Amino acid sequence: MAPVLSFDNPIFSQFAFYASVVIIKTLIMAPLTALSRFKYNAFGNPEDYVTVKKPSKVVVNDAVERIRRCHLNDLENVIPFVIVGPMYILTGPQAAIAALHFQIFAGARIFHSIAYLLPLPQPSRALAYVVGLIVTISMLVNVLKHATF
Amino acid sequence: MAPVLSFDNPIFSQFAFYASVVIIKTLIMAPLTALSRFKYNAFGNPEDYVTVKKPSKVVVNDAVERIRRCHLNDLENVIPFVIVGPMYILTGPQAAIAALHFQIFAGARIFHSIAYLLPLPQPSRALAYVVGLIVTISMLVNVLKHATF
Amino acid sequence: MAPVLSFDNPIFSQFAFYASVVIIKTLIMAPLTALSRFKYNAFGNPEDYVTVKKPSKVVVNDAVERIRRCHLNDLENVIPFVIVGPMYILTGPQAAIAALHFQIFAGARIFHSIAYLLPLPQPSRALAYVVGLIVTISMLVNVLKHATF
Repeated sequence: MAPVLSFDNPIFSQFAFYASVVIIKTLIMAPLTALSRFKYNAFGNPEDYVTVKKPSKVVVNDAVERIRRCHLNDLENVIPFVIVGPMYILTGPQAAIAALHFQIFAGARIFHSIAYLLPLPQPSRALAYVVGLIVTISMLVNVLKHATF
Repeated sequence: MAPVLSFDNPIFSQFAFYASVVIIKTLIMAPLTALSRFKYNAFGNPEDYVTVKKPSKVVVNDAVERIRRCHLNDLENVIPFVIVGPMYILTGPQAAIAALHFQIFAGARIFHSIAYLLPLPQPSRALAYVVGLIVTISMLVNVLKHATF
Repeated sequence: MAPVLSFDNPIFSQFAFYASVVIIKTLIMAPLTALSRFKYNAFGNPEDYVTVKKPSKVVVNDAVERIRRCHLNDLENVIPFVIVGPMYILTGPQAAIAALHFQIFAGARIFHSIAYLLPLPQPSRALAYVVGLIVTISMLVNVLKHATF
């Protein structure tokens, strides 16, 4: 059977699980940022100061900015992974190898967020980033092998 | 018939419409930013000062930055929605429920941009953001129900 | 045959190639940023200062920020293109016209990065951005023509 995008395809079904996990992880960063803005009274817009007095100038808080950088890093890495995933599945990879790609990526990105937010000493975060990147690149190399110029 | 990604599938065809609308809405933010940069002579790069004299230091303009934050918020929310959409369609949702997801999301994000750019008093923008997020989460929960660990 | 997402479909196979190219181009911006941060000792987080002494306040370096703006511009433009691509393919475009879309987009975005990073005098970068945007809009118009309200 040719590889297809369908929940009948166990590889796609597994990708759907891990893709959902990393997308949810990424989406969570926004409410985390909001909570942190309330905690430090450091909002991005004047109209956001509804419960406390608006300061005379924009407050930039280190803890808030750290969560925002973590969020941006997710956008830069999680989004490419979930976009490349379906193309990779359509190349017809072996189920066990595909599963390894999805699981390592999800693990690396969850660890990346922990390393970023605690923060853990470097090179924890850098390593997590590199592992995730290698997975995406490996999937892209497979796609390029099957693609036509 | 198994759910497929095809314009013959009315749910996909409708998703294609609303996904295009929210992607176009997101893409419009960049020309809006550019117009605003010209209006306030607040460019992001030295070489962008071609019609007016380059100031001695980078000008950060509140109106420009507001549009940029709105754009970034779109990237954080619209992109996950349009990526999750096809996976959600493949779970075989009921047509009417799927339509509701797509329409509420598009409405919430268009209102979010209006609330951000005017700006409307809070919690208008926060509410629009939360409604869009709930739609995406609802789609993700459906995907997770059909996915395999 | 109805248009499908499969490497048996030459249009999809060609899209997979150009989509991979522009995603790899986007992913490269992060290691470039990292290299630049090491070159100028301008890191985004206190814990990133492992080989040099941490300065008393955050260092914002122009060269680093330029690469980051280029990266963000890629996210804003490359991601919508690669998401719209499969929907566009499913509308069943002519192979030659589809190829032109993919090739012009990839060319425009590679030139955009060169124009941003050197930098080339304006309107080089603005033009590259507009050409890429026109391609994505053209694909979106096709999708909207086939989609249902």
